Amino acid sequence: MDLPFIEIIIILSTLAFAISATSSAMRKHLDIFGIVIIAFVGSVGGGTLRDILIGNTPVSWLQNTTIINTVVVGMLLTLLVNRKLKKINYTLFIFDAIGLGLSTIVGVQKGMDMHFVPGVCVALGAVTGCFGGVIRDILLNEIPLIFRKEIYASVSIAGGIIFYAFTYFNFNEKFSQLFCIIFIVVVRVVVVKYKLSLPSVYVGSNKDI
Amino acid sequence: MDLPFIEIIIILSTLAFAISATSSAMRKHLDIFGIVIIAFVGSVGGGTLRDILIGNTPVSWLQNTTIINTVVVGMLLTLLVNRKLKKINYTLFIFDAIGLGLSTIVGVQKGMDMHFVPGVCVALGAVTGCFGGVIRDILLNEIPLIFRKEIYASVSIAGGIIFYAFTYFNFNEKFSQLFCIIFIVVVRVVVVKYKLSLPSVYVGSNKDI
Amino acid sequence: MDLPFIEIIIILSTLAFAISATSSAMRKHLDIFGIVIIAFVGSVGGGTLRDILIGNTPVSWLQNTTIINTVVVGMLLTLLVNRKLKKINYTLFIFDAIGLGLSTIVGVQKGMDMHFVPGVCVALGAVTGCFGGVIRDILLNEIPLIFRKEIYASVSIAGGIIFYAFTYFNFNEKFSQLFCIIFIVVVRVVVVKYKLSLPSVYVGSNKDI
Repeated sequence: MDLPFIEIIIILSTLAFAISATSSAMRKHLDIFGIVIIAFVGSVGGGTLRDILIGNTPVSWLQNTTIINTVVVGMLLTLLVNRKLKKINYTLFIFDAIGLGLSTIVGVQKGMDMHFVPGVCVALGAVTGCFGGVIRDILLNEIPLIFRKEIYASVSIAGGIIFYAFTYFNFNEKFSQLFCIIFIVVVRVVVVKYKLSLPSVYVGSNKDI
Repeated sequence: MDLPFIEIIIILSTLAFAISATSSAMRKHLDIFGIVIIAFVGSVGGGTLRDILIGNTPVSWLQNTTIINTVVVGMLLTLLVNRKLKKINYTLFIFDAIGLGLSTIVGVQKGMDMHFVPGVCVALGAVTGCFGGVIRDILLNEIPLIFRKEIYASVSIAGGIIFYAFTYFNFNEKFSQLFCIIFIVVVRVVVVKYKLSLPSVYVGSNKDI
Repeated sequence: MDLPFIEIIIILSTLAFAISATSSAMRKHLDIFGIVIIAFVGSVGGGTLRDILIGNTPVSWLQNTTIINTVVVGMLLTLLVNRKLKKINYTLFIFDAIGLGLSTIVGVQKGMDMHFVPGVCVALGAVTGCFGGVIRDILLNEIPLIFRKEIYASVSIAGGIIFYAFTYFNFNEKFSQLFCIIFIVVVRVVVVKYKLSLPSVYVGSNKDI
């Protein structure tokens, strides 16, 4: 296959996020156009913010119709299936986790391609993985998923660190990518299944300024 | 007149949005500075996001004092008139619709100038037309107008598609622009007057993940 | 010292905002990772938006590990001290005011370095000073501090205008910077202490469109 492996990861991550974002929008009973916007923002939002931060403009989906088509396919698929199935919470959650894994690796890779320092590469992975969902939640006027109890961004960051380390030590590229994608997806699933959360820090006062 | 027609459209769109944004801020009883921020963000927000996405930076209002002056004029006008009139809901709604029509055309035109594919040009029109209002509503901690019942962004997209088609088939430029601006304004007014909304899609489950 | 004075101001402003943002996050009982995100966004958000608007990308913190380290130091300091002290509202408020003063001057200076017109320079100062807090509040689903009763952005704008005027009339650079930083901090403190607010504008109608 001529398509570079990273491009395949980008398309799969867009598809996974399109499915989860469309479902979120449908649960809010948005009309079809609201669904289109949320599907789009949830799918490309993280990568767009990353591209803006690193100055990679025009941002990638403006020049890549494959991305736009992938969002449309993911949205239509979800609209068709969601009308029939009743209990797809688990399926949707899985697709969000898959999107998180795939897009984190894309973000870290972009950072390494531009020779940023390790911390910045890992941060770009987290931005790519998490901020599509953050912007989606802000548009829907919800407290972003990222700030709720269960570990979310931390999983992305942990996976990003491992991926950076593997690449630094010259592990095989595809192996590193696949391993870290699977790592993030599995850890995210385990975290939610067992309701794991980070230890709370003590706060002396509870009042706002 | 030496000023290009598209520049006139940009100024009128800024003026229309400044009037509607200022009114929104006044209805929220913001202090004068809150009004200034909302007027500014509501007027230039959509174009700014478009400029950022396509990498057209520094964004246009940083280099174009006419835009800034137009926002100030629109804001002062509204502040003066709004203190006297009681029922200006309709007037304000009209200015928002006019701003939507004008700025959509500006966005599609910018996309065509940069030779993006049709879907992207139409999307840039919708971003320019709708996202000033979206950012304004997010700042005011409201669910963006775009996600409420009545058709909003869909009107912008429909007008953008027609404008792209007209241009593609080499219709007279000014005619195409004027026709599509009027189309968007009229459809938006009709939509609100008759409370038209897009058909809802069936949602099997109502629970959040 | 070899470090330019403006670089010192940037670091101190980042530190001050990191302390106030970390405290805000702790008061919301976020987990440690939520605190990391809010600390980071609150510290670099204003400067990042400014850099994006003026096309200064990759944005500065991606290429400047000192900024990232400063955020981490400010966050850890606050986490340690906040666990022990109970009444630090005043301390935190002070650090937010200090951050506002320092970062406003940085923003105006950047605008002048790029030869923007006076109004734009002052606006860039306000963006740098205020929007880290705005984005932080939006992420936490609160009405941004900037829209609440007490004068906030107006202080930044007043300080920015004075700083621009001082520079225009060739006052000593360090004196101008220090004077305006202190001006903003002191005025902000006085405003909050005496609960000063801008005069309200009359609104004829209170209903939403």
